[in-house]
Amino acid sequence: MDYYSNQIRKLIEELSRLPGIGTKSAARLAFHLIHMPVPDVKRLAETMVEARENVRYCKECFTLTDQELCPICANENRDHRTIMVVENTRDLAAYEKTGKYEGVYHVLHGAISPMLGIGPGDIKLKELIERLEGEVDEVIVATNSSLEGETTAMYISKLIKPTGIKVSRIASGVPVGGDLEYIDEVTLLRALEGRTEL
Amino acid sequence: MDYYSNQIRKLIEELSRLPGIGTKSAARLAFHLIHMPVPDVKRLAETMVEARENVRYCKECFTLTDQELCPICANENRDHRTIMVVENTRDLAAYEKTGKYEGVYHVLHGAISPMLGIGPGDIKLKELIERLEGEVDEVIVATNSSLEGETTAMYISKLIKPTGIKVSRIASGVPVGGDLEYIDEVTLLRALEGRTEL
Repeated sequence: MDYYSNQIRKLIEELSRLPGIGTKSAARLAFHLIHMPVPDVKRLAETMVEARENVRYCKECFTLTDQELCPICANENRDHRTIMVVENTRDLAAYEKTGKYEGVYHVLHGAISPMLGIGPGDIKLKELIERLEGEVDEVIVATNSSLEGETTAMYISKLIKPTGIKVSRIASGVPVGGDLEYIDEVTLLRALEGRTEL
Repeated sequence: MDYYSNQIRKLIEELSRLPGIGTKSAARLAFHLIHMPVPDVKRLAETMVEARENVRYCKECFTLTDQELCPICANENRDHRTIMVVENTRDLAAYEKTGKYEGVYHVLHGAISPMLGIGPGDIKLKELIERLEGEVDEVIVATNSSLEGETTAMYISKLIKPTGIKVSRIASGVPVGGDLEYIDEVTLLRALEGRTEL
């Protein structure tokens, strides 16, 4: 990359380390940044460092937040007896966007994956079990519908069932608006198994 | 976006202002940044600000560089009597990657576009004419093959011809490896017009 001067090259290299950003996108971003007003670039840089330094786990549900207790856990109007278990903060956000879930969450920060060497001790499972010592009516397992997500769901259900607390799993099936023709067979079979009476 | 805490939300907002980054990509990037080691985030932030503050135009060819004279203009082994005119630094880099061009460049930082209200005075054209007062054998116009690029090429050719300096335009035609079936008609006609004897 001798055709770019040193600092531009360094910036492109740094940017291309980010996920989903190849060398071409990194170059486009770098030149955009170089043409941005200096205060805007400084604000972006500060926001990044501040977020990195201040964002931590919520002490209750382990979502990423800049306070000790996240806004959802701090909200007394939410149903603190229903806990939805998700893999990460983005999954939590996906359910929050529906605006219909009233309970609280528990963020695992991963899923059990023997392939990647991620065991139950590597995700926030112990912390989930500790939370169940409080007053909990139901644990809804909303891990992804992937091999890892399903494994984690099975593991959690086995762990919690002996305590007598209700454990449920979000439904798996054809997405709304989905065309059967283009849906994979596993999903079609799941949808069949999970059929409900009309 | 109440489902993300304040600083995460701010970071996502800042990132989604960058070109080609929507809210979803911005969220993915933000969470990646939050999980990165603190020194790495700081280095990225510093690189951004440094590049923005130090990168300027080369005093000779107006490419973006962190020195007064860019490495190409400073290189005595290059042919300083042949100037390739490009629209921006990325176009310069594209030709540098071929490794076959021995001359120097002139970066216009744009192209004439009556539609967008960009006139000859808004790009580095005056600076190109000033350079021609030195010893120049040929000006190769390598602006894009778009309406704006062609307009700019025509304008430059009319401006330079009276000086007696040779002006040429890079060829327009079917890209190497391109399948005729998928090439637009204008390109096909250009390729026909620009045919060379075998």
